[in-house]
Amino acid sequence: MISEFYKEMTGKESVIRQFFDFARARAAEKGPESVFNFSIGNPSVPAPESFKKALIDIVENTDPVVLHGYSPTLGQNTTKACIADSLNRRFGMNYKAEHIFPTSGAAGALSHALRCVVNEGDTVLSFAPYFPEYVPYVEGTGAHLKVVPADYDTFQINFEKFKEMLDENVAAVLINSPNNPSGIVYTTATIQKLADILNQKQSEYGHEIFLITDEPYREIVFEGVDSPFPSKFYDNSICCYSFSKSISLPGERIGYMAVNPAAKDAEYIVPMAGQISRFTGHNCPTALMQLAIERVIDETSDLSIYERNAKLLYEELTRIGYHIVKPMGTFYMMPKVPSEGSELRDANEWCWKAAKELGLITVPGDSFLCPGHFRISYCVPTEMIEKAIPLFEKAFNF
Amino acid sequence: MISEFYKEMTGKESVIRQFFDFARARAAEKGPESVFNFSIGNPSVPAPESFKKALIDIVENTDPVVLHGYSPTLGQNTTKACIADSLNRRFGMNYKAEHIFPTSGAAGALSHALRCVVNEGDTVLSFAPYFPEYVPYVEGTGAHLKVVPADYDTFQINFEKFKEMLDENVAAVLINSPNNPSGIVYTTATIQKLADILNQKQSEYGHEIFLITDEPYREIVFEGVDSPFPSKFYDNSICCYSFSKSISLPGERIGYMAVNPAAKDAEYIVPMAGQISRFTGHNCPTALMQLAIERVIDETSDLSIYERNAKLLYEELTRIGYHIVKPMGTFYMMPKVPSEGSELRDANEWCWKAAKELGLITVPGDSFLCPGHFRISYCVPTEMIEKAIPLFEKAFNF
Repeated sequence: MISEFYKEMTGKESVIRQFFDFARARAAEKGPESVFNFSIGNPSVPAPESFKKALIDIVENTDPVVLHGYSPTLGQNTTKACIADSLNRRFGMNYKAEHIFPTSGAAGALSHALRCVVNEGDTVLSFAPYFPEYVPYVEGTGAHLKVVPADYDTFQINFEKFKEMLDENVAAVLINSPNNPSGIVYTTATIQKLADILNQKQSEYGHEIFLITDEPYREIVFEGVDSPFPSKFYDNSICCYSFSKSISLPGERIGYMAVNPAAKDAEYIVPMAGQISRFTGHNCPTALMQLAIERVIDETSDLSIYERNAKLLYEELTRIGYHIVKPMGTFYMMPKVPSEGSELRDANEWCWKAAKELGLITVPGDSFLCPGHFRISYCVPTEMIEKAIPLFEKAFNF
Repeated sequence: MISEFYKEMTGKESVIRQFFDFARARAAEKGPESVFNFSIGNPSVPAPESFKKALIDIVENTDPVVLHGYSPTLGQNTTKACIADSLNRRFGMNYKAEHIFPTSGAAGALSHALRCVVNEGDTVLSFAPYFPEYVPYVEGTGAHLKVVPADYDTFQINFEKFKEMLDENVAAVLINSPNNPSGIVYTTATIQKLADILNQKQSEYGHEIFLITDEPYREIVFEGVDSPFPSKFYDNSICCYSFSKSISLPGERIGYMAVNPAAKDAEYIVPMAGQISRFTGHNCPTALMQLAIERVIDETSDLSIYERNAKLLYEELTRIGYHIVKPMGTFYMMPKVPSEGSELRDANEWCWKAAKELGLITVPGDSFLCPGHFRISYCVPTEMIEKAIPLFEKAFNF
């Protein structure tokens, strides 16, 4: 018989997907100009021209038997060294090639990192607002995810609740900064305080608590924003990265896991990730993408549109009266659904009304454990935002 | 604390890897001409020129935001349809796009297929000689692998032992034909008999037994050999394929799972695979490779060298006196370690002696549950085989 566990999941579309499908159906019915789709987190700017050149050069000038041959299980050594050097140069770290494990995007990095540092039945803590795919990433390891409620005023860490939920079953803490869906970046003060608490609790419990940092938006941080590199502050840490957002390559599934050289058992963790791949059938990212990424290691797409869009939306929406924690990076923000005072309104109802009456497609915050809020993805043409402002104005009075 | 389960596995190199490392060390010490390395299963012929052209054309002429954007969770529709059409045309099947799930090579296909059709605690049966990575692929699902002993005379299925081991805990049967490491191909008679037994046992037990067919060597079959398409013979089947061997792309991690449209619950299985990816962090293969493979769907590399090498080795080794089940495809064969009569000698000892005294690197059959035999991988230059024949002659008298 087929697996009951996975069968039960099919046919249940996520709320995000339902809004996305609604947007597509409406565009087909009433024309694309009737849809203002702020539901998608797909980069809207092209990969740098140098990436295209790198791909073509590699394909044209490498022996195909070598180029397309198996990568070493733990990744191409040149790629690993190149990633380590870049992180060391930029963040004052001392990674070596052997601390880097190339992966199929951040999903691959997180799945491997979690399996490396948890045992069956452990607890992993994360923080709202959070990325809902953390649930299967964590559950797939045999551990359980618990999510610390949001601090709605800042979307920094709610330390009071965190301390209440931190107990000796916690094997790992998973953070996402710059954050999807809030667009905020954890400050140096936040990261330092988190590190202090974890260090204290490690001593108290007598075991390691690993910090897993999900950083695909690391390069999309707005001008003047304090953006600490979390692994700099805490030894038992694994940095998980994807080139999906910074170089606009989400479909090419290339990222990495970087193990802090100061972590307990650091020398085991990448070889363990190699073993984990055998159990998940994951294996390396493609040989071609590993080689190509070396050529653009410190480059990004032209990310300036995201900051322009953030500024425009934040200014206009706060002018209208929306309450928004000002985004500091990414291409998301998480306004409060308009309501009286501190009351939290049903975001699902409000978002559907905006979608159906105005063609204004956003996503309710409930999926991110952030009720009463909605996510705007602004990886869209600025012109679309300009046209959508009057609709946000109408929706404010729903 | 880091995972004890995976930590224990690190630092224990497979026997295959030990021989490979020995070959490299000897080449470094005594020069490459002193090593005859028959231990590796990496294609030795280049991908077709048309594949290179396809990659360059796609990269040069596709909007990068579209090209490198997220693939749909269940794979690119054009790729899925193209694979289905090719299988239907060649094997008289009636797959539709929705039955195809593009994966990161055969490892990805097998890991997804197994998770789709087993539940925790089930048994999966496979047949010696078998690919040792089946152990983690199966154990990673929560099921257990049991391996039916080899039929040393033919390397077809040992049906007597199979019937003894088949019980109602068996949820899936996993076959690999053309076979690594024996190089044989299951005949129509073998596949038909297997299907008959499974159909009978399904009725008896009152539940499905899925047949998972691991077919990366499907296109490497020698002239005149009967090579049935197993899914044609059995409804509850999932075909797992990789382009690694046929188009020489092992590093590019592209393959697929094809669900038999006649299988019970066929319509659920690909959507379930999409859910499984969320738990393993696997996701799609790269967008670029999915698109490129469409352009070469019915092509192969020039595979003729493998048949020439097989013929030469088989003729020369049987002339010397080795007992070999004649290979019918792939780039492997599995001779018996020279011994008196039917006695099975210690293959590990014999292989190390040949490696150390002669630089003749093969792999003992024990890892494939085939003691007293050794695997020769002949994806090598024919000239190397010619030079190695006198060494095989010496080793015959060890």
